[in-house]
Amino acid sequence: MPVKTVDINCDLGEAFGSWRLSDAEDAKLMELISSANIAAGFHAGDPNLMDTTVRLATQHGVGIGAHPGYRDLQGFGRRRIDGSADELINDIVYQVGAIREFARRHGGSLQHVKPHGALYMELAANEQLSRSFIKLMRTVAPNSFVFCMDISVTYRVAVEAGQPVIREFYADRDYDRSGSIVFTRHGKKLDPQGVADKVLRACQTGKVRTIEGDDIDVAFESICFHSDTPGAFEIASAMRQTLIAGGIRIAPVSDIVPQKPQSE
Amino acid sequence: MPVKTVDINCDLGEAFGSWRLSDAEDAKLMELISSANIAAGFHAGDPNLMDTTVRLATQHGVGIGAHPGYRDLQGFGRRRIDGSADELINDIVYQVGAIREFARRHGGSLQHVKPHGALYMELAANEQLSRSFIKLMRTVAPNSFVFCMDISVTYRVAVEAGQPVIREFYADRDYDRSGSIVFTRHGKKLDPQGVADKVLRACQTGKVRTIEGDDIDVAFESICFHSDTPGAFEIASAMRQTLIAGGIRIAPVSDIVPQKPQSE
Amino acid sequence: MPVKTVDINCDLGEAFGSWRLSDAEDAKLMELISSANIAAGFHAGDPNLMDTTVRLATQHGVGIGAHPGYRDLQGFGRRRIDGSADELINDIVYQVGAIREFARRHGGSLQHVKPHGALYMELAANEQLSRSFIKLMRTVAPNSFVFCMDISVTYRVAVEAGQPVIREFYADRDYDRSGSIVFTRHGKKLDPQGVADKVLRACQTGKVRTIEGDDIDVAFESICFHSDTPGAFEIASAMRQTLIAGGIRIAPVSDIVPQKPQSE
Amino acid sequence: MPVKTVDINCDLGEAFGSWRLSDAEDAKLMELISSANIAAGFHAGDPNLMDTTVRLATQHGVGIGAHPGYRDLQGFGRRRIDGSADELINDIVYQVGAIREFARRHGGSLQHVKPHGALYMELAANEQLSRSFIKLMRTVAPNSFVFCMDISVTYRVAVEAGQPVIREFYADRDYDRSGSIVFTRHGKKLDPQGVADKVLRACQTGKVRTIEGDDIDVAFESICFHSDTPGAFEIASAMRQTLIAGGIRIAPVSDIVPQKPQSE
Repeated sequence: MPVKTVDINCDLGEAFGSWRLSDAEDAKLMELISSANIAAGFHAGDPNLMDTTVRLATQHGVGIGAHPGYRDLQGFGRRRIDGSADELINDIVYQVGAIREFARRHGGSLQHVKPHGALYMELAANEQLSRSFIKLMRTVAPNSFVFCMDISVTYRVAVEAGQPVIREFYADRDYDRSGSIVFTRHGKKLDPQGVADKVLRACQTGKVRTIEGDDIDVAFESICFHSDTPGAFEIASAMRQTLIAGGIRIAPVSDIVPQKPQSE
Repeated sequence: MPVKTVDINCDLGEAFGSWRLSDAEDAKLMELISSANIAAGFHAGDPNLMDTTVRLATQHGVGIGAHPGYRDLQGFGRRRIDGSADELINDIVYQVGAIREFARRHGGSLQHVKPHGALYMELAANEQLSRSFIKLMRTVAPNSFVFCMDISVTYRVAVEAGQPVIREFYADRDYDRSGSIVFTRHGKKLDPQGVADKVLRACQTGKVRTIEGDDIDVAFESICFHSDTPGAFEIASAMRQTLIAGGIRIAPVSDIVPQKPQSE
Repeated sequence: MPVKTVDINCDLGEAFGSWRLSDAEDAKLMELISSANIAAGFHAGDPNLMDTTVRLATQHGVGIGAHPGYRDLQGFGRRRIDGSADELINDIVYQVGAIREFARRHGGSLQHVKPHGALYMELAANEQLSRSFIKLMRTVAPNSFVFCMDISVTYRVAVEAGQPVIREFYADRDYDRSGSIVFTRHGKKLDPQGVADKVLRACQTGKVRTIEGDDIDVAFESICFHSDTPGAFEIASAMRQTLIAGGIRIAPVSDIVPQKPQSE
Repeated sequence: MPVKTVDINCDLGEAFGSWRLSDAEDAKLMELISSANIAAGFHAGDPNLMDTTVRLATQHGVGIGAHPGYRDLQGFGRRRIDGSADELINDIVYQVGAIREFARRHGGSLQHVKPHGALYMELAANEQLSRSFIKLMRTVAPNSFVFCMDISVTYRVAVEAGQPVIREFYADRDYDRSGSIVFTRHGKKLDPQGVADKVLRACQTGKVRTIEGDDIDVAFESICFHSDTPGAFEIASAMRQTLIAGGIRIAPVSDIVPQKPQSE
């Protein structure tokens, strides 16, 4: 199933206090994307940075997404914490509310919620947690999108509940035969044009080459890349240009998926 | 200026994780008050407790207030931190948003914002910070009340800006001749009826006896007591009964002060 | 194998800032025990409390133990965090050093290390982590005791490496047939004399009744109870009196296990 | 008073988790310095980084210093927190102990303690706090050096108490007429050779040019630069070469100041 219109999303606002995660500048990346997943203080992002990042997104017409994570600054939200579903959902409420308040301050609104790192992976596999999460979304943000992967439990649960949902294709990650992304820490920088070509092919053919060497089908409405991937700006620039040259339109998620697909 | 209708507010949800601040039970205190200042995670209050406390407030028809503090769990927000006005305001945005999201989840809304501890005192004296705070409120919560003291800079700035504002009388604190409250750590428990009589007199006459021994005028629309004052429940019970017996009506702040005093 | 001399250990200093975990007073519990496991700031315990608790232990001649936990104040160290062995060991180094410095300040020294909560359980089951932990102890504290359970991997690894080690019997927890303790949250308070009798029997016969109803063997040199078990002081008092009346001597671990059992 | 032998110190290990403070690499800076002030977890530095940094220092023969700060990750310890002297000293005990334990692990020892940022400035001006700090050092580290400025209260109190003490000259900061350093955030990069020449002149003549344009006397045994000053490596390289070419010997503080100047 070819993709003719696609969203580009990126995790932004992932520094903390005086520290930074990478050399990529959020202000520049904003020009290349249509959706920003903004860290909300538990795994990254302090209130000053959240304010700046939300304001930037508003100025660039980029969709504002809350990017809640585990409460683990040291581990950058990449370490699973054994919390109950209720606890984790309360953590999400807290972080979503914070992002939403900065959006309100700058005249924006909450376009989507995309959990971060280990919490994203936990949700993808944990049906009880996904059900609690989607139930929360139905209550507090029934018109905001959930970002997840096609093969995740989260996707299935969201669709069943009628929650607007966006599936992602990971531009700067490898896939294995099962359709999972592989967290290889590349020793070398990715080749921007290579990534761009992979993404264009995925859009045009719905296929991606796995690390095992065969093709699998991928279904998605958004392309994700990471601001801390070395060369993120170059990768995203090449990708954007290649997509446009290839006839793919980059657009906000609300243009791609009608916001209330099954509800009402 | 006698007070015929008054609000009663209390700081609630001030535990954290497995710890508690006092033996007073929030669920019982909810029955005695009309406004709750709910800790928002920086000086006290974790997301689980915030969820519980906001839900309790909604169930009891108690007005939900965000109670933002300095980011200082160890010091319980009682230690001033040298932050810029911009930083502190961003901290407030973050915490207000979190409380507001829990309110949304439970079908409530943000009645008021009352900064906590050292941040409350800093605002009371710091004109630049008060101006930034009230400017924020005008933007994100123009119809929510700000709680502060009559003699504070915050009050003056709020009134000038047309922000709904409530002045507090501190039931379980002593006043000095300047109208400031004195943070005496009482070795002995307060006498509940003594506190109740003091409060009734303040309502009926607008006067309070200072630690120096003379009377000063006090102007207020709400009475504040603290859940960690030893015997808080008994004090609040005596106060409530004494006020009602004395003909004072206890009511939500929106009944006392029309919500848009000067705006529009 | 009957036990004639036994240590009594308890987790202390488990409050944080203005909050407390229970009504039990550390100063009173110090009179009933011979070893204190002192929280070191990651799951509980701030520097002020650590200072107070270490000083109290020194004054009472109670052995000072570091009680390192996962970095999780909200979860009180009861939630497992997916960290690498290296990360977790570094967390332990940090916390042990902090406790040791307070001991130095008050003229004491590090008697033992007992990991807390979920970290204790993780060590008990994780051979790689136990090996890293014992390797650390051989390097930084070869004469300090490790506290663990008889059936844990930690015990086996410690013995093999020649690290001084103490096995614990849990007075206020139930055992199952496998020899594991069962984290039942008792709705009702424990009967102090019932606990005391169970402990005396364990000392005299080396046996404990499981929740399934049969007896299993237990091997230990120390008895552990928790300061946040309701009625902790009464339980510990009854236990201590019953043990002494039953001819069991309560003594420091260094009297029970020679400090360098296999080394040199 | 010309300086013929001098120490060079730098704050290191100031990243946190996945974040970094600057592009300067600690491993390279270690080759240029003789003393490292290692962040201890409150304003920067997590246990993993502390382990790495202490190990690096040991490998390079660089003196290990604890660099305790206010508990303020977001503010990088640059915001003053209103804590009592007792509280702040307990925070220092905790952090010093942590660094000392990593030193023990790697076969090193605690050469010095240098408080960080706002805590350093507070100590410099606050006699009660300086007295508490030096009293602590006399108790737990009577042979370790305290790093401070010549004009600070800390220096005077340390000398009076007989604590080994080192005064610093700030290479990458400007001085004003009062002898205070001025925290100008330079828009442009510092010229490495300009800094090197300033430092050499300070060593040879004991004088530095102030921002007002005149010379003042400076007394010091160590030169400090900051790893987050843009171009830190180039500045330190130029400085080191220029000093050596100018006949100044770079040496550990124990070579410069006999370790027990007044005690015993």
